[in-house]
Amino acid sequence: SEVKKIAVIAGDGIGPEVVAEAEKVLKVTEEVFGYAFETEHALFGGIAIDEKGTPLPEDTLEICRSADAVLLGAVGGPKWDNNPKELRPETGLLGIRKALGLFSNLRPAVVFDCLKDASTLKPEVLEGTDLMVVRELTGGIYFGDKLRRQGEHGEEAVDTCVYNVMEVERIVRQAFEIAGKRRNKLASVDKANVLETSRLWREVVNKIAPEYPEVEVEHVLVDNCAMQLLRRPSSFDVIVTENMFGDILSDEAAMLTGSIGMLASASMGDGNYGLYEPVHGSAPDIAGQGLANPIATILSLALMFRLTFGYEDAAAAIEAAVAAVLDAGHRTSDIAVDKSKAISTTEMGDLIVAAI
Amino acid sequence: SEVKKIAVIAGDGIGPEVVAEAEKVLKVTEEVFGYAFETEHALFGGIAIDEKGTPLPEDTLEICRSADAVLLGAVGGPKWDNNPKELRPETGLLGIRKALGLFSNLRPAVVFDCLKDASTLKPEVLEGTDLMVVRELTGGIYFGDKLRRQGEHGEEAVDTCVYNVMEVERIVRQAFEIAGKRRNKLASVDKANVLETSRLWREVVNKIAPEYPEVEVEHVLVDNCAMQLLRRPSSFDVIVTENMFGDILSDEAAMLTGSIGMLASASMGDGNYGLYEPVHGSAPDIAGQGLANPIATILSLALMFRLTFGYEDAAAAIEAAVAAVLDAGHRTSDIAVDKSKAISTTEMGDLIVAAI
Ligand SMILES: CC(C)[C@H](C(=O)O)[C@@H](O)C(=O)O
Ligand SMILES: CC(C)[C@H](C(=O)O)[C@@H](O)C(=O)O
Repeated sequence: SEVKKIAVIAGDGIGPEVVAEAEKVLKVTEEVFGYAFETEHALFGGIAIDEKGTPLPEDTLEICRSADAVLLGAVGGPKWDNNPKELRPETGLLGIRKALGLFSNLRPAVVFDCLKDASTLKPEVLEGTDLMVVRELTGGIYFGDKLRRQGEHGEEAVDTCVYNVMEVERIVRQAFEIAGKRRNKLASVDKANVLETSRLWREVVNKIAPEYPEVEVEHVLVDNCAMQLLRRPSSFDVIVTENMFGDILSDEAAMLTGSIGMLASASMGDGNYGLYEPVHGSAPDIAGQGLANPIATILSLALMFRLTFGYEDAAAAIEAAVAAVLDAGHRTSDIAVDKSKAISTTEMGDLIVAAI
Repeated sequence: SEVKKIAVIAGDGIGPEVVAEAEKVLKVTEEVFGYAFETEHALFGGIAIDEKGTPLPEDTLEICRSADAVLLGAVGGPKWDNNPKELRPETGLLGIRKALGLFSNLRPAVVFDCLKDASTLKPEVLEGTDLMVVRELTGGIYFGDKLRRQGEHGEEAVDTCVYNVMEVERIVRQAFEIAGKRRNKLASVDKANVLETSRLWREVVNKIAPEYPEVEVEHVLVDNCAMQLLRRPSSFDVIVTENMFGDILSDEAAMLTGSIGMLASASMGDGNYGLYEPVHGSAPDIAGQGLANPIATILSLALMFRLTFGYEDAAAAIEAAVAAVLDAGHRTSDIAVDKSKAISTTEMGDLIVAAI
């Protein structure tokens, strides 16, 4: 088969360590399944600020654009937290989403058996929880006009939240498609009793719904959703929502599974193009010590195989290998009950490679 | 002492039933403590739409304005859910907040011992949770300009989020005051890595913080806060945030206590003026059957005594009476383990009255 190009962004903190293990997995899937990949590394985030004076260098964007998909470790850290806006890793993150047109963020929130006790929720409440948050990623209040001005009561700040029909349609349609391949349930989250953008959102959902008669649609207000995620997490299948609400709810959903350190994510653009990254951050406190858990990054690679390349065999093989290694009792320190038996980042990577 | 005027708004659903019990409590505190109250009833919400053609009639506003405080049951119900915007109960709610200048919403989230098993969180995680969300209530994206327009990619909707320094200062200052009377911890929640209004918010918090050296301040990003509420609820004392984030986080916080049906709230304006209401809604499904739990409304009245009138003795007596009745094992059906032993709304009210 043709050679697929993957842009690899290690990033900051534990990013390089976890990405290195995913690259081992990439290599072994080439050997086992006969696929061919070409990787190109690029600087992004804090390290790019340090080395290039900007979180998102132009040649990084070019490497990403000429690739079929992007694998990202993690970005950010206290070192850059007090930088001016243009010199902050987050600015790079928002910039890359916009520049690559990554309008849809997919965040599966599942419970790993070995981690179900790590959740602060009661096991009987968590039982069967397996949901996916589909978050709009390039619109809304994140990207609307922002300004400061002098008002009647002192200085004031303004953020603008804008959505057009096209932006809502493409993400809602994608969410319906995903729900159709899962349990046929879609919760559309908005604040239609207050926001005009939410009323537009709801109109679009209602307009598209008849095209997917097999999918059951529920409109949930964002405040109520924050509650229902706690009360009945397993009743959700796919949740679709706008950028800001998605930021909050996807993190809440991930945390309640107790498995946040193992969750993968995909940010999708047009035509199967995607950027894949673990949900966990750069964890600067444990960076460089071989303590990081590479599983979320490896599962992000599996997601890339499935969603961008359609290599379902390789995706399933990686997921099965991860499950097998966990079933055999191997744990990195973040998920080990007995920390003295914890294995290192590279040991975990090697075991997964061996299992594939 | 002088006669205090209270505007009483029963509202919709179970509102009239729970408010009636709070009025009994009002009466007995007059007798026991020698305070004098004058109540005036007003129409608001769905019932006002039905009877007056608007959710917030002008004379309701006048009754509220000429009172020292407002007691509100609950508003809304499916009957009005598909009405046009101007004829919806929520529109009345937003209108009354703005008209009465209720800029600060206080939502204590505590765990009632008898309800701690009702939470979906593990008891050991919940242990010691006692927090207060201070939500800005008359600014932000709720009240900024809203519009529809024709854009390049079809129709688009716009919401505007605006905050000025004065609006942020008054709520932040109030939150510091409250934290100073509690455990001296304040978490200010924003999205300063994305929003201009959040950057203004954070600047104001940092400017005011030195005036309250005894209060420890933490800035928490809203997505992270949604997670930390789940992971370490008991570590929070006071959380202060803007309108939209406060809507989401106060509901999440209330739900995780498992005690949402028993929680009171206060919406405060200038000079101790306040509107007090239970956190639970109008529950139209159980309305008129004597099943509603009046405790949250009665505790809202206690909050009124404390915050608007400074009648700490009466406030404490009501809270103690509620605790005593619960300790004695009395339960309305919403909180009864054995539903067959549940008592009615009026029985619960009578028991609390007797205990005062
Ligand atoms: C870092 C921040 C800008 C970003 C966001 O809010 O989108 C992050 O929270 C995320 O969810 O990826
Ligand atoms: C009904 C709605 C407009 C309201 C709000 O969002 O403020 C409600 O959710 C609340 O929190 O009181």
